[in-house]
Amino acid sequence: MKSLVTTSHLSRQELEGLIDRALRIAASGEVEGQALKGIAVATLFFEPSTRTRLSFELAATRLGGDVVSFELAGSSAAKGESERDTVLTVAAMGPEILVVRHSTDGFPAVVQEWTGRAVVNAGDGSREHPTQALLDAVTLVRKLGGIDGLTIAIVGDIAHSRVAGSLMNVMPRLGAQLVLAGPEPFLPRGHGFGVASDLDEVVAVADVIYLLRVQRERGAKEGEDYHRLWGLDARRAAKMRTDAVIMHPGPMNRGVEISDEAADGPRSLILDQVANGVPTRMAVLAALAESLS
Amino acid sequence: MKSLVTTSHLSRQELEGLIDRALRIAASGEVEGQALKGIAVATLFFEPSTRTRLSFELAATRLGGDVVSFELAGSSAAKGESERDTVLTVAAMGPEILVVRHSTDGFPAVVQEWTGRAVVNAGDGSREHPTQALLDAVTLVRKLGGIDGLTIAIVGDIAHSRVAGSLMNVMPRLGAQLVLAGPEPFLPRGHGFGVASDLDEVVAVADVIYLLRVQRERGAKEGEDYHRLWGLDARRAAKMRTDAVIMHPGPMNRGVEISDEAADGPRSLILDQVANGVPTRMAVLAALAESLS
Amino acid sequence: MKSLVTTSHLSRQELEGLIDRALRIAASGEVEGQALKGIAVATLFFEPSTRTRLSFELAATRLGGDVVSFELAGSSAAKGESERDTVLTVAAMGPEILVVRHSTDGFPAVVQEWTGRAVVNAGDGSREHPTQALLDAVTLVRKLGGIDGLTIAIVGDIAHSRVAGSLMNVMPRLGAQLVLAGPEPFLPRGHGFGVASDLDEVVAVADVIYLLRVQRERGAKEGEDYHRLWGLDARRAAKMRTDAVIMHPGPMNRGVEISDEAADGPRSLILDQVANGVPTRMAVLAALAESLS
Repeated sequence: MKSLVTTSHLSRQELEGLIDRALRIAASGEVEGQALKGIAVATLFFEPSTRTRLSFELAATRLGGDVVSFELAGSSAAKGESERDTVLTVAAMGPEILVVRHSTDGFPAVVQEWTGRAVVNAGDGSREHPTQALLDAVTLVRKLGGIDGLTIAIVGDIAHSRVAGSLMNVMPRLGAQLVLAGPEPFLPRGHGFGVASDLDEVVAVADVIYLLRVQRERGAKEGEDYHRLWGLDARRAAKMRTDAVIMHPGPMNRGVEISDEAADGPRSLILDQVANGVPTRMAVLAALAESLS
Repeated sequence: MKSLVTTSHLSRQELEGLIDRALRIAASGEVEGQALKGIAVATLFFEPSTRTRLSFELAATRLGGDVVSFELAGSSAAKGESERDTVLTVAAMGPEILVVRHSTDGFPAVVQEWTGRAVVNAGDGSREHPTQALLDAVTLVRKLGGIDGLTIAIVGDIAHSRVAGSLMNVMPRLGAQLVLAGPEPFLPRGHGFGVASDLDEVVAVADVIYLLRVQRERGAKEGEDYHRLWGLDARRAAKMRTDAVIMHPGPMNRGVEISDEAADGPRSLILDQVANGVPTRMAVLAALAESLS
Repeated sequence: MKSLVTTSHLSRQELEGLIDRALRIAASGEVEGQALKGIAVATLFFEPSTRTRLSFELAATRLGGDVVSFELAGSSAAKGESERDTVLTVAAMGPEILVVRHSTDGFPAVVQEWTGRAVVNAGDGSREHPTQALLDAVTLVRKLGGIDGLTIAIVGDIAHSRVAGSLMNVMPRLGAQLVLAGPEPFLPRGHGFGVASDLDEVVAVADVIYLLRVQRERGAKEGEDYHRLWGLDARRAAKMRTDAVIMHPGPMNRGVEISDEAADGPRSLILDQVANGVPTRMAVLAALAESLS
């Protein structure tokens, strides 16, 4: 694997290879101990995300790699430099792998074009967040034994979610059936998946309820309305199928898309997702390192 | 030692064990060269303190550990995530040791409860700053040969000082006698230590004058008033006992609690304190690493 | 070499030693693999420059060194600590090498005086930026085979440019002939170099056109005026001598001192300069490490 800017071209075999590698790393952190020895990873976050950046940094250092972090604040951008010049400059310094996050759809692919460097997409616009979908897959395999045959409901602002963008590529390819649920304007067009008209319907059939973050900026009143219609609360969680689980990519808006009871209850895999993020990103970085010339 | 969130339960023997370890490290940085090999330390500073964070980071890297820094700015907090979720998320990523600073009393203990992880308190509210008191002890042992029998005067806003909180636990247990001095509203209640009614009285008897930082925000006029009454100036420093020393946890407000002459004169141990911070924190981190399962 | 705060005292032999070392490192990154093992480098940037800081950090980590970054935001400075106290505090923590950037002329030399530590000037006021001039020399040697006999035109606000300050020391000593060009108020006094009255004259004779960054804050209208008179555009670039090259220390103001065609064309060495920054700084850090007691 030369880069990971999108999940759209990854075959089931490639996905399973990465997942298996992450599972092996999670089982014994030692396995890939020095896979990034002598390799520098630069994190270029044009949009801040401390949690994702830390996860990648931990993954890289656990593999013996060097890490430098480029953050937009106080950077040359403030001096009027174009983003292209910023990217070319950081790449020219020689880091072998670039981890890129940007609010514009497709930016990581453009970075790869500009630089020819190994690029990991750490979230672009409302398009993709490949390592999130991979770590979600790892989490489901560890918890439920596999993904084949699962019914996964994605609930919330699917149209604008980069996480949903990657899940819709990855999960069906691993044998899951997707059901989308959310307010009408939040549903994407032309996706080919089943759509549920309300959350109670979803709760009755799903093995996995995957809640997306709602922008809290929409106001407290709207938050309450959303919670009543589309939030997973204790009452709904109680109606979930035996062994069904709850997922969320974080950060959560408690009281909006999810209640405290659902977030902290025994069905919640939310912290497992975070924990699996590090071995999953180690697997991705190690795979990229092998492909370096 | 599983965690270091408070000094209140540390026995004299435990304190001396940490101090001796720090002294050995200071004498030869090589001793504990790789004590943190393969161990990741996350600094979670909910309240900024570059100097303390750098000291911990240097300590961890000198021991071969990996460091990731969580800073509040630009973090998920801005996205409405609760502090508990932020802490649980960082902990879930797997760093073995969490170094926590927060403006709320008792927060590091709560982090330990939430996460079950090894936690070092790097300052909480107006309560404790354990590694500061330890590095102060190391500094006194290196400079004066020991702490037993010393008279240590703590001067300033003792009631609201986390440094004083830890000193009042650590120093008496190591055989020192404490004298507290400062404006009436700055004195704590029910402490059982001697109180001096003015600084000149203190200067005549103390082996150590330990000045606390005064919040400069109180205004220039008040700063001058404070300096006249409670500031250590050249005149007072000249009246100190032979071999008596001056300490301050930094950052200093020159011209308020301390004059340039006192800060930069031969009695000042202020930079020694900073220098001893790194081996002291190395000793603490190495001790925590040994206790990891 | 104990420190690198200025280029003014470096002999041709010393310059060539550093350049040769950088060339060897660039040819094989392995050569100096562990030259900074056990050595901590602290970057103290009182003025932000992500690109320069990253370049130093990559250089230090590539050599096996530990890096801690001091950034002004959120630091003790906000708490009223003097810059001298901040510097003494960071130095007291024991990093062997300090990389210092400051908007005040001569600050790195003062840091060296205060601390006695090995100091690298990463840019001070309008005075010097030694590693920039060195990496420029490395770039010219790699591209043109040598510097002896080259005519180098420096174009722009030379009087206020720290880059020009170091170039005027380094390049003549390596055998180059300098020509200065720019608006009258941008020319320094008493320099002894040739002066060109317009850019077209320069283009006809120079082997190297070295463009300096113009402060964009001067307004769009002034930017256009500057570009017409002193900007290197496609028309002027076409009149350059065969094999003549274009350099710029970055970040560029495209459309002001340089056009897109000139910046991205085949004569441009701008990204080579960035790329050579890392091995050059590795050479400097390795030389300083050897001189540590």
